[in-house]
Amino acid sequence: MAATALSIAFDADDTLWHNQPIFERSYEKFRSLLSRFHEPTAASDTLIRNEMRNFDLYGYGIKGFTLSAIETAIQLSDGAISADEIRQLLDAAKEMLAHPVELIEGVEEVLKQLSADHRLLVVTKGDLRDQERKLEQSGLLGYFQQIEIVSEKDVASYRRICERHEIDPAQFLMVGNSLKSDILPVLELGGRGVHIPYHITWAAEQVDEPAAVPGRLFKIAEMHELPKLVQLLTTA
Amino acid sequence: MAATALSIAFDADDTLWHNQPIFERSYEKFRSLLSRFHEPTAASDTLIRNEMRNFDLYGYGIKGFTLSAIETAIQLSDGAISADEIRQLLDAAKEMLAHPVELIEGVEEVLKQLSADHRLLVVTKGDLRDQERKLEQSGLLGYFQQIEIVSEKDVASYRRICERHEIDPAQFLMVGNSLKSDILPVLELGGRGVHIPYHITWAAEQVDEPAAVPGRLFKIAEMHELPKLVQLLTTA
Repeated sequence: MAATALSIAFDADDTLWHNQPIFERSYEKFRSLLSRFHEPTAASDTLIRNEMRNFDLYGYGIKGFTLSAIETAIQLSDGAISADEIRQLLDAAKEMLAHPVELIEGVEEVLKQLSADHRLLVVTKGDLRDQERKLEQSGLLGYFQQIEIVSEKDVASYRRICERHEIDPAQFLMVGNSLKSDILPVLELGGRGVHIPYHITWAAEQVDEPAAVPGRLFKIAEMHELPKLVQLLTTA
Repeated sequence: MAATALSIAFDADDTLWHNQPIFERSYEKFRSLLSRFHEPTAASDTLIRNEMRNFDLYGYGIKGFTLSAIETAIQLSDGAISADEIRQLLDAAKEMLAHPVELIEGVEEVLKQLSADHRLLVVTKGDLRDQERKLEQSGLLGYFQQIEIVSEKDVASYRRICERHEIDPAQFLMVGNSLKSDILPVLELGGRGVHIPYHITWAAEQVDEPAAVPGRLFKIAEMHELPKLVQLLTTA
């Protein structure tokens, strides 16, 4: 490992593999299920509001999403939704949980290349079981020295991770698609962030683009640009 | 810390605080909700079977339990359960998730005493968010050097925990109420187990009492007997 080795942490959903499109299809199914009771866009807006209100109790992930979807369906149909329609929401949850993992282009090559010189980690939030399943199915586990599945990605959780693995935040580089969860708290901790936007951003993750932080905040369009950026950072 | 210091890991639910009674009340509510469709005992037996079948996708915890309860209610009522009754299952989930933490008698004293000479850990399974909430509310966090929330308690997960924290399994003592999750895999790994039975055991955790393993498997009736046992083990 080079003297200038970094600890490079990767977000998982929509950074290593596609995730938001699976949820988008579920929102679409939800809207169509509710369409006989309610105007479609308003229906999924109410679902998203209920999800956000329930985060504190449910946390992130498919199971909490599904409980919120059932709650919202009952609410918007004024109790007229049928048991069979609710069963369709349960079936959709199981499909989402069993959905095959589809890697984002270039991920495996980039991890292979970077793991030769740097310590790689995964830092992801969501349901423990579901994230473990996806990591296992991804075939990427061998590239990572640490896997951290957390219930919230905030400054405190990144600080705990750095302390636990004896990582100096100045040598910590977080790569992810969410400014709110992957980038802003890491900058606040004194680390560096690489933002790789995904083509859809979940409503609960939307924040304004922060002001430039030269030398600590980077934005690239595709995963395969990462090794070149890391090389620049470690030879500067 | 004494030269004979152990790493003592505690299960959380029904070892540090009461948990199963909260689920028992939910099974009772479920039976009574279904009573107009189905014979009560058979109703909760079917729910438990569905829970077990769904573990692989849902993992452990209140959210998965609730999704299985809704599924079972639709199944056993042949779709005749009303949206309002399903909402009662959702309300019950939120109550369970917000239920105050009630410590088991003697826990705090015992942790205080043992933490002076030994490294204490928590090893628990279930929903990440829910276990974190309970740990925080318990007021016990200060006694533990490591918190491990895992999706399954098997030999592989205990091995990972020992490796991660550089614990020799021979110096690892696991304390818990479940023979299946807390004791048997730890014995298989070469560690020691202290079984403190709780007055109710969840159906999915029931296994036959194992044969005696002298010097490695201990059974005590109450948490407050633990320090004396630990003293015997470290001065033998």
